[in-house]
Amino acid sequence: MKEVAIGIDIGGTNTVVGIVDQKGHVFASGGISTAAYDDIDDYSEALFAEIDRLVDTISDIKVLGIGIGAPNGNYYSGAIEFAPNLKFKGVVPLVEIFKRRYDYPAIALTNDANAAAIGEMIYGGAKGMKNFIMITLGTGLGSGIVINGELVYGHDGFAGELGHVIAVPNGRQCGCGRKGCLETYCSATGLTRTVSALIGSTQLPSSLRDVKASEITSKMIYEAAMEGDELAKEAFRMTAEILGKALADATAFSSPEAFFLFGGVANAGDTIIKPTKKYMEEHMLSIYRNKVQIIKSELPGAHAAVLGASSLVWKELEAAAQHA
Amino acid sequence: MKEVAIGIDIGGTNTVVGIVDQKGHVFASGGISTAAYDDIDDYSEALFAEIDRLVDTISDIKVLGIGIGAPNGNYYSGAIEFAPNLKFKGVVPLVEIFKRRYDYPAIALTNDANAAAIGEMIYGGAKGMKNFIMITLGTGLGSGIVINGELVYGHDGFAGELGHVIAVPNGRQCGCGRKGCLETYCSATGLTRTVSALIGSTQLPSSLRDVKASEITSKMIYEAAMEGDELAKEAFRMTAEILGKALADATAFSSPEAFFLFGGVANAGDTIIKPTKKYMEEHMLSIYRNKVQIIKSELPGAHAAVLGASSLVWKELEAAAQHA
Repeated sequence: MKEVAIGIDIGGTNTVVGIVDQKGHVFASGGISTAAYDDIDDYSEALFAEIDRLVDTISDIKVLGIGIGAPNGNYYSGAIEFAPNLKFKGVVPLVEIFKRRYDYPAIALTNDANAAAIGEMIYGGAKGMKNFIMITLGTGLGSGIVINGELVYGHDGFAGELGHVIAVPNGRQCGCGRKGCLETYCSATGLTRTVSALIGSTQLPSSLRDVKASEITSKMIYEAAMEGDELAKEAFRMTAEILGKALADATAFSSPEAFFLFGGVANAGDTIIKPTKKYMEEHMLSIYRNKVQIIKSELPGAHAAVLGASSLVWKELEAAAQHA
Repeated sequence: MKEVAIGIDIGGTNTVVGIVDQKGHVFASGGISTAAYDDIDDYSEALFAEIDRLVDTISDIKVLGIGIGAPNGNYYSGAIEFAPNLKFKGVVPLVEIFKRRYDYPAIALTNDANAAAIGEMIYGGAKGMKNFIMITLGTGLGSGIVINGELVYGHDGFAGELGHVIAVPNGRQCGCGRKGCLETYCSATGLTRTVSALIGSTQLPSSLRDVKASEITSKMIYEAAMEGDELAKEAFRMTAEILGKALADATAFSSPEAFFLFGGVANAGDTIIKPTKKYMEEHMLSIYRNKVQIIKSELPGAHAAVLGASSLVWKELEAAAQHA
């Protein structure tokens, strides 16, 4: 009998489901469209059907719980709260909805960056680490902060929004309504904005000058940088400088052993990690220097989000065992 | 038999000792000069003599431990590590030195801001709070961060240096060697620097124009502001603006229930708290708005540092009981 957890990653477009054991082996995965449903009850029914279908494909398993990563997922309330990129408006009590259908010992919800942090701790490079910070560099910048071996949720469940610390006073307009947030510079979107800005502000030669701004991707910028494109290289340097400074400030907060980088921009590997480390060290208070690592997430790309979500189950069971 | 803790606050000039019960009642207090000793052994002997003298002045007590607050005090190592303002250089294993002399169940060391945070939690306004941040506004800016009811020490014992996040890029020269650190603006010293800068940059009328820059104190600035001095009022407004923005960023990290302000500048009460709250709310990510309090520390001024130090003892005993 294999003990497994179900991981569910809810995105604005798709919802991905996976069945995972404690070592991170994914036995089955599938999914449904998120965007196709306007009503949470219809969506839930479709999701339950997909879960049941996947569970039936594997013999000899015991499901211990369901972990869900979702935008604006609040661990304390078990609800998705006012997620701007989902059609389900207001407060959606997702854990309650799941508990009406399933009676597994552990059913829990958090946001995707927090799920990635727990996933790194359970399956990835942060095994055994008690103090680290996960930085997800996707459309935006998300973060999951671990202190003394526990995810930091704060008093209201919304801690860990490092994408919205102010990196540049009166800087770029952010989707949150304010200006200069870290994620407007350090994210896949931020990187493409930096390329557009550099096309305007410099005369650096670049193949990216021949691409429509709306079609430039972080992958394209990485490939250009690899081919020696001066403008693409400068865009990575600028991103690393702002990220490095922000990580130096974050270190003054919780003094982590490591930062893990995850997602699109992190796939650039040393192209982003090496200069970020250099700028972080340069801007750090001396007592922290040469102590803090920056590491590419070790969660396997294809299943990373589902692994992160499923890891909540093992974390919940571990906490329950400690308090028993 | 009264159960008591000994609190020791080590400053660059003086060391203060107090004997305190769990309600924060100070039965006796005294102290020795710190600056008079070049050698840690001579200093320790004098301090032990003062402790023993104070213990003998009170009848019918049982001492449960010693808590020490000191600059660069590292909770994990129990040592003062490279404190720039003390004559004792390098690593001073203070807890070990104390344990050779006393066999109380709890002997612990941390820095003064962390001690103030624990003090606020045990004796002051943070009783029952699980997530809050103490900000001490003295010569510099210190901080003690509490998450899930525990002080955040980080992986190396040096977490919580919010005085050294960069508040103003390429801003004022800081004693740490970098530029624009929060404490160069938001601290007693920072406030006096702001007054000097305003004397140069504005034509605001002010009685402070008739005081030598080296003699201006934060208390003097507060008194001038209370009398309607335009320049002093502008100095408080600027301090509050920078502090409010920094607290908005800190909220994105750990989403605390409250910030407590402690020390010289905090004594200005609403003159600093009200505008800081206004700027914090203005610069905050919307999900955090109208949730986070800013509160003046409720530790009584005269004994605050000793109370903070002594509170480590109760915290240690509480942790030991939980793990027993």
